[in-house]
Amino acid sequence: METIEKITSEVIARLNAGNPLPGIPAGVSNRHIHLSQEDLESLFGKGFSLTEMKPLGQPGQYAAKETLCIAGPKGAIPGVRVLGPVRKESQVEISRTDAYQLGVNPPVRLSGDLAGSADICVIGPAGMLVLKSKAIIAQRHIHMTPEEARLFGVSDGDLVDVTCDSERKCVFSGTLIRSTSTSALEFHIDTDEANAAGIKNGMLARIEGRS
Amino acid sequence: METIEKITSEVIARLNAGNPLPGIPAGVSNRHIHLSQEDLESLFGKGFSLTEMKPLGQPGQYAAKETLCIAGPKGAIPGVRVLGPVRKESQVEISRTDAYQLGVNPPVRLSGDLAGSADICVIGPAGMLVLKSKAIIAQRHIHMTPEEARLFGVSDGDLVDVTCDSERKCVFSGTLIRSTSTSALEFHIDTDEANAAGIKNGMLARIEGRS
Repeated sequence: METIEKITSEVIARLNAGNPLPGIPAGVSNRHIHLSQEDLESLFGKGFSLTEMKPLGQPGQYAAKETLCIAGPKGAIPGVRVLGPVRKESQVEISRTDAYQLGVNPPVRLSGDLAGSADICVIGPAGMLVLKSKAIIAQRHIHMTPEEARLFGVSDGDLVDVTCDSERKCVFSGTLIRSTSTSALEFHIDTDEANAAGIKNGMLARIEGRS
Repeated sequence: METIEKITSEVIARLNAGNPLPGIPAGVSNRHIHLSQEDLESLFGKGFSLTEMKPLGQPGQYAAKETLCIAGPKGAIPGVRVLGPVRKESQVEISRTDAYQLGVNPPVRLSGDLAGSADICVIGPAGMLVLKSKAIIAQRHIHMTPEEARLFGVSDGDLVDVTCDSERKCVFSGTLIRSTSTSALEFHIDTDEANAAGIKNGMLARIEGRS
């Protein structure tokens, strides 16, 4: 099976040799918050719903007009953007730099993988919550459709090395492929990763190989 | 000449094959300030001298007890450590994350290469200064002696790819070799780079090749 996969990847790579692969636009995620409807109402008031401010790269996702203050034992960061639509479970995604400032220690995780993650305080205009085991540092990943995955010779769940010809070039190992039919092609990194490499939103990245 | 260099590197690499190269300890630089004696006195008072708090990895360098506030058009960061001893010219080294917070735009540069770099306000207990063209983001580099350079098969001024088996493994391209007889072996990165890769002070890095 592994041999077949290798041969298939190689054949695809050669077929594409005269037909270069598309660049993968970088999407830099600043700290942000996803909320459940219940937590949204606790923070903003009964019956509250988010107001869309700007669509995001992934279809249906948006930055809301609403922001919240997040806090930990060492400090607080106000003005943290809420993303919509609401989800089944709330989740706070911060960078390691933010984590030091707040004095919390979240694990590097995939979105949705919250068991044993960090606690964080979230403060809104209508209420305050301690979100238990809801804070993570997002693992870098690439969104793509299954058709794009075939084109790149990768599959959902693969870990790849990704780079970008930016000012302070880095090769990011262990970047996860997330492939669903509703994905838009995008390389998601956080602000620490973007700043370390000098990457800005929309710059084109490429897969250099498997990690 | 290039061929001779390549052969020499290859021969050294093979001689060392049974004798692995030493790991290069990572030194993570948080934002910090070097001061000239004149600026030190403007900020802390006439005749002032720094008090050593903790020695740094490079011989003779130390973290001083003194801190200062730095500021730009978007904000200020208090408690920024002054490093000693005093230098011929003042220099403020911050991360890209700090630069966004302050609203300044320093170039990525080698220490000492200040022409055309960013302006920054520095505020001390006895005075305030606008340091003109004195703020940079430090280019990642490795300090080593010429003997260590020979061992690694590199020379002062070379650019190499460096990595570390950290949680979020990155390969850092364009890392500059700085070789002097008084250097201690150390891979210097800033907090953005350390946080992007999950690298902590003292973790061992290795050179993977030339950039």
